[in-house]
Amino acid sequence: MKAIADKGAPVCVGLDPVVDRLPAGLSGNATERIEVWCEGVLDAVVDHTPAVKPQLACFERYGAEGYAVYERVVAYAKKLGLLVIADGKRGDIGLSSAHYAAGMLGKEDAADALTVNAYLGADGLEPFTNAALQAGAGLFALVRTSNPGGDALQGLELADGRTVSQAVGQIVADLGVSKPGYVGDCGYSLLGAVVGATKPQDAQLLRELMPQQLFLVPGFGAQGGGPEDVRACFKPDGTGAIITASRSVIYAHEKDTGVDWKAAVANAAEEFNKQVRVAVRR
Amino acid sequence: MKAIADKGAPVCVGLDPVVDRLPAGLSGNATERIEVWCEGVLDAVVDHTPAVKPQLACFERYGAEGYAVYERVVAYAKKLGLLVIADGKRGDIGLSSAHYAAGMLGKEDAADALTVNAYLGADGLEPFTNAALQAGAGLFALVRTSNPGGDALQGLELADGRTVSQAVGQIVADLGVSKPGYVGDCGYSLLGAVVGATKPQDAQLLRELMPQQLFLVPGFGAQGGGPEDVRACFKPDGTGAIITASRSVIYAHEKDTGVDWKAAVANAAEEFNKQVRVAVRR
Repeated sequence: MKAIADKGAPVCVGLDPVVDRLPAGLSGNATERIEVWCEGVLDAVVDHTPAVKPQLACFERYGAEGYAVYERVVAYAKKLGLLVIADGKRGDIGLSSAHYAAGMLGKEDAADALTVNAYLGADGLEPFTNAALQAGAGLFALVRTSNPGGDALQGLELADGRTVSQAVGQIVADLGVSKPGYVGDCGYSLLGAVVGATKPQDAQLLRELMPQQLFLVPGFGAQGGGPEDVRACFKPDGTGAIITASRSVIYAHEKDTGVDWKAAVANAAEEFNKQVRVAVRR
Repeated sequence: MKAIADKGAPVCVGLDPVVDRLPAGLSGNATERIEVWCEGVLDAVVDHTPAVKPQLACFERYGAEGYAVYERVVAYAKKLGLLVIADGKRGDIGLSSAHYAAGMLGKEDAADALTVNAYLGADGLEPFTNAALQAGAGLFALVRTSNPGGDALQGLELADGRTVSQAVGQIVADLGVSKPGYVGDCGYSLLGAVVGATKPQDAQLLRELMPQQLFLVPGFGAQGGGPEDVRACFKPDGTGAIITASRSVIYAHEKDTGVDWKAAVANAAEEFNKQVRVAVRR
């Protein structure tokens, strides 16, 4: 909360390094270029965002070497005072979930939060919530994703009239308040929810269903979501959601060619911050 | 198919290294002991199983160092002629899915198959199926998991009378035959399904719904599934399913204390193979 106040808007910049899209002029092999670029992006966005969200897939692609880069990038982000949301969408059961949580959240210089997949149910999520409580970390469970194909499952109607994503939302809402300590002083649970910016009609119902969940909201910018679309994710007091943008910020050099790539990224991050600030105020 | 015929039964041994449960007498730090133990387990099971299934969480717990151990263990398993199913339950959209697939399947000494999560829908899975086609690899999408908590979502009834897991099964069945090359000469698609051994009543319907999916069937042994429970996962000709056991085989030294740990693991793998062979024949 304090981090959001300091930067003026509840935003998060996604860090999805794709080697073909990196600006020219970086030297070294793929992982070396990715590391230098990630650090440059972090420097460029730090004044305009409280949080960043590295996409694990983009690092895991390069195996152990990529994983080592991920770890160093997280450490650098934390050194800059940024909150780190590891976008790993991990999900398993029992000890396997506990192991993912330990690897992602339970170490020095680990991420502050992790995205998780709820398809395996509450007993798949609980090892994550237990670990997050111990580590003072957070989680965001996928409830309603921003991609078009998500509708085919998440939008299905159940016999009881709810949708599949509402059923998942209920599992998340219930688990999120099920133990002492899961809900912080701010009134929000350590278990939040991912709700895509491209589904404003669903966001309203999900907001009511999950009053104690922070929403992590992808799909702003490149995926088509705008300020109007994300308003339903917030509570009337302007809290309750963190809006994320990735490609529209980090690859801003592709369009904004008049300045060097770091300046282009900084400008895009500042503009993104402004857009969300306006959306929250209304 | 040939690998299964050579070893006499469609089985797979899960490799879930948990440092507290490793046999005594291994030396080194956690990841060193895990690596030595994994190689010992692979040596012990190679005569009794065509496939092994490393649990990514158990390696990722140790960060880049654990990931490097995972890569070496996969390479060693392939050197022994074993098929490797990476149990990562990865799932994302677009480029992120493509990056996971590239990291897990698209390299020298990569796994032969990967478990994936279908909650994000067909457009989340398709980058995986495209990559698997290119790599000559396979996938198993989570349809009906073996844990008790899976029921709360996967067992829900839809307005059209199906269950959530059947809807996921349909997405998997449709995507699995949607492109030339997805279905191999054996008649099975490169996109298979995870169907837990603890849900025999669901397995029958899912078997009919997904005639061209190979089923990866966890939950045998430690989780309570037995030979009777897995029969519905097979087709009448005895093909169509791979039964996996993890803890009951790899930690056999905890019960079978009269022999050294590798012999205990080998005995348990042989016994597991026999049990499944009998189940298939009936």
